[in-house]
Amino acid sequence: MTDAVKVLRRIQKQMYGLEYAMNALDYDAQTVAPSESAEGRGEALEQLSSMHYSLVASPEMPRLLEEARAGELTEQEAAEVHELEKQYKQISRIPQDEFAAFIKLTSNAVSAWEKAKSASDFSLFAPYLEKIVATRRHFAQLLDPTKPAYDVLLDQFEEGLTMEKCDVFFNQLKEVIAPLVHRIVTEGKAPRADFLNNRWPIERQRQLSDQVMELMRIDKEHCILGESEHPFTSGFSKWDVRITTHFHEQDMASNLYSVVHEGGHALYELHIADRLEGTCLADGASMSIHESQSRLFENYIGRSLPFVKCIWPLLTALFSEQLKDVTAEEFYKAVNTCQPSLIRTESDEVTYCLHIMVRYELEKQLMNGTLEVKDLPNAWNALMKELLGVEVPDDAQGVLQDIHWACGDIGYFPSYALGTAYAAQIVASMRKELDVDALVEEGNLAPINDWLTEHIWQYGLEKNPEWLIQNACGAPFDPKFFTDYLVEKYSAIYEL
Amino acid sequence: MTDAVKVLRRIQKQMYGLEYAMNALDYDAQTVAPSESAEGRGEALEQLSSMHYSLVASPEMPRLLEEARAGELTEQEAAEVHELEKQYKQISRIPQDEFAAFIKLTSNAVSAWEKAKSASDFSLFAPYLEKIVATRRHFAQLLDPTKPAYDVLLDQFEEGLTMEKCDVFFNQLKEVIAPLVHRIVTEGKAPRADFLNNRWPIERQRQLSDQVMELMRIDKEHCILGESEHPFTSGFSKWDVRITTHFHEQDMASNLYSVVHEGGHALYELHIADRLEGTCLADGASMSIHESQSRLFENYIGRSLPFVKCIWPLLTALFSEQLKDVTAEEFYKAVNTCQPSLIRTESDEVTYCLHIMVRYELEKQLMNGTLEVKDLPNAWNALMKELLGVEVPDDAQGVLQDIHWACGDIGYFPSYALGTAYAAQIVASMRKELDVDALVEEGNLAPINDWLTEHIWQYGLEKNPEWLIQNACGAPFDPKFFTDYLVEKYSAIYEL
Repeated sequence: MTDAVKVLRRIQKQMYGLEYAMNALDYDAQTVAPSESAEGRGEALEQLSSMHYSLVASPEMPRLLEEARAGELTEQEAAEVHELEKQYKQISRIPQDEFAAFIKLTSNAVSAWEKAKSASDFSLFAPYLEKIVATRRHFAQLLDPTKPAYDVLLDQFEEGLTMEKCDVFFNQLKEVIAPLVHRIVTEGKAPRADFLNNRWPIERQRQLSDQVMELMRIDKEHCILGESEHPFTSGFSKWDVRITTHFHEQDMASNLYSVVHEGGHALYELHIADRLEGTCLADGASMSIHESQSRLFENYIGRSLPFVKCIWPLLTALFSEQLKDVTAEEFYKAVNTCQPSLIRTESDEVTYCLHIMVRYELEKQLMNGTLEVKDLPNAWNALMKELLGVEVPDDAQGVLQDIHWACGDIGYFPSYALGTAYAAQIVASMRKELDVDALVEEGNLAPINDWLTEHIWQYGLEKNPEWLIQNACGAPFDPKFFTDYLVEKYSAIYEL
Repeated sequence: MTDAVKVLRRIQKQMYGLEYAMNALDYDAQTVAPSESAEGRGEALEQLSSMHYSLVASPEMPRLLEEARAGELTEQEAAEVHELEKQYKQISRIPQDEFAAFIKLTSNAVSAWEKAKSASDFSLFAPYLEKIVATRRHFAQLLDPTKPAYDVLLDQFEEGLTMEKCDVFFNQLKEVIAPLVHRIVTEGKAPRADFLNNRWPIERQRQLSDQVMELMRIDKEHCILGESEHPFTSGFSKWDVRITTHFHEQDMASNLYSVVHEGGHALYELHIADRLEGTCLADGASMSIHESQSRLFENYIGRSLPFVKCIWPLLTALFSEQLKDVTAEEFYKAVNTCQPSLIRTESDEVTYCLHIMVRYELEKQLMNGTLEVKDLPNAWNALMKELLGVEVPDDAQGVLQDIHWACGDIGYFPSYALGTAYAAQIVASMRKELDVDALVEEGNLAPINDWLTEHIWQYGLEKNPEWLIQNACGAPFDPKFFTDYLVEKYSAIYEL
């Protein structure tokens, strides 16, 4: 190992320590922290992130990266240098005071968004979003003045993603999904789902979560389940991954599929190769790849009939009263009900990507300057009507429903749809080697985890999404696997 | 504010961020973290503490401190400079690699101690303790070669404390406590305490903890109660203080008095003046002063008859079955049973300081070189026999019972006894202005909290223990308040 690589390793260890701490503070804040404890934590996070900035954007970094590249590098070392260079460019081109001001802006924006959402009044949030949009365009200009701002943002979440690629992708989806939704709504035979509104005691739901984690082979010595308003996953280290869920007495599916979804994220983090731990590569390959793993477990495994059959003895033992006249097939269909609706996070597999398209179109226009923030609610409502056929009654259930823009995350939403589509292709590839349905039905998920470890999980951030899809599927990404899956699954459920 | 003070303030903010993170990681580890998550956390803590070291022991620090002292300083600024200088001296005189090696040594020593304790085999821990003793003597030499090693260590926990002062203090205690214990054991009328061994449902104990926190006026928006094997308090910031307790179905007093004890620590942290937040002064004045506040609530308030009378309606409502033939007076006496025993943390107010004396004597001899680690168990057992009259059956219940030495903390134990004695004098002073018994009995603790805020809590680390005792009591520290209290209270309970 050359001296430059050794110094870069030491810097990565320091970054690791600071990232670990920031993750832990964030997890604590969302799960157990006292309600009015934000002030000290905000100050601490500001200090930690500023130390992190100084490490990544250190004036010595260009020289170190150059020296490292000039020497003999292993494949992993080369990937570390590549990733550090990427982070250096993204951070060092933005002056530290502007970066700090943006962190502060988004922190205030989140508070404003919370108030705006609870009052269902977009005007309370609009001034913050205007500043966020302006700053993001300005930052994009600083990062790469040769590219359109939105392309710069898309690339930050998924290396190489552009509006051109997104347009092609979303058009392919729309061509299939729009007519499918139309047929489901007009000709489909809706399954019964009345029983999902029963009362499901929280204590029993907790037992279910616990059993489902075991079924997924999530190692509880290294992963615990917490509770938070919005479920999320946080990987502190390879040996410590946290997932959260939420419990609603009248909605057992929400907890069940939150655990399966976050469990997918957790399995990914828990299976990154040991050799990457402590380096900048010990992370998911991208937002989309991470989401592909959570969706793979939530939708392709969790919402499949074999999975429902597998957990049926458990479900009927825990909820004998609630499920007394229900069959496994009915339960399977009920948790796959398709219904155009207002809220993205509660939507089904078919309409989900339409929600993403609404956001993608609006982000594109905001960043291209063809839409002003003040006109956003109307534009939102019009697109919801056009793509999903629903009338938005108020901003809370419309343009204010997601936290992402308040956090400053513009260009993030397409990752959700991409990840969902990646997962379809990955599962199709896995099926060539494994009898996935039989394994899931008998509750033997180990071969599936092993397959994903071998093809995806172990690599962390060492390989990019393109390489991983090629490696796992033997072909480049093709959204047709996803649209075919939707048509086949939903034609059967809705008897089309 | 001079430039040097401004730079020192910025450094203190960075220290604050790192200390906040280390506290949060430690709290998380002891309360919710997955069982096998230590490895990544250890690495993160090593990185964070090494950054903290670099801040405190920065080569620029001497110049900054000198420049600051040369300018006009407010009282608070002068205290900050004093504290930073103290920390600089303590840290910079120890080479960074030796400091890091010691952190690693104590981390391994804690694991070894756990194994040794569970196997009740001192030999498994002895090699680690030998290294710890040797390193502590070496460090003491580096810190101040003009003083005996143990004096250097005592001073680290309580500024100005020496063996000479400890000897005087402990002799004063022994002269009163030894004959008092003898009379209690030989002539005293032991109160009934059979009912304490009833079964106390955990859920009811939780409700009790919650109510007791309210009674103590602990602001739950800024302080939460967690669970851990050993109760502790951790102040992340003025707005976020954590306390923990443990629940045992057959011992309700342990949870009750853990909450009251840790609650005392928490109240102190929660009432440090706003102006000190973010500086190195936002902390307790010393271990002893901190302990004086927890003991004040646990013993002088919590184990008083007025307190038991105050919570009696609550206790009998929650535990009507367990307390059905018990009076408040009987309960009061039962939780004040005096009985020489093996375990410090379970001992009563009278014998507690004898346990501390055992440790003080042994630490002194270890550091003075008159006792070798291999002879420690025999020396321990002999002193327990001499001071408490008990036979130690095994190392687990003897020399291996406390974690402190494994953590590298030598010179810490005397703080417990000092704090307990401080509290007696502070309460005596408070009684001149407040009718403490009446306030406690009516559950009106606000004036007590206000008095303590005014005289002690607000000052944080700005004032030293000596100043605080003088300020609160109008006189220097005098252990007679403590011995008088013990004699009066226990003569009444044991009808001597």
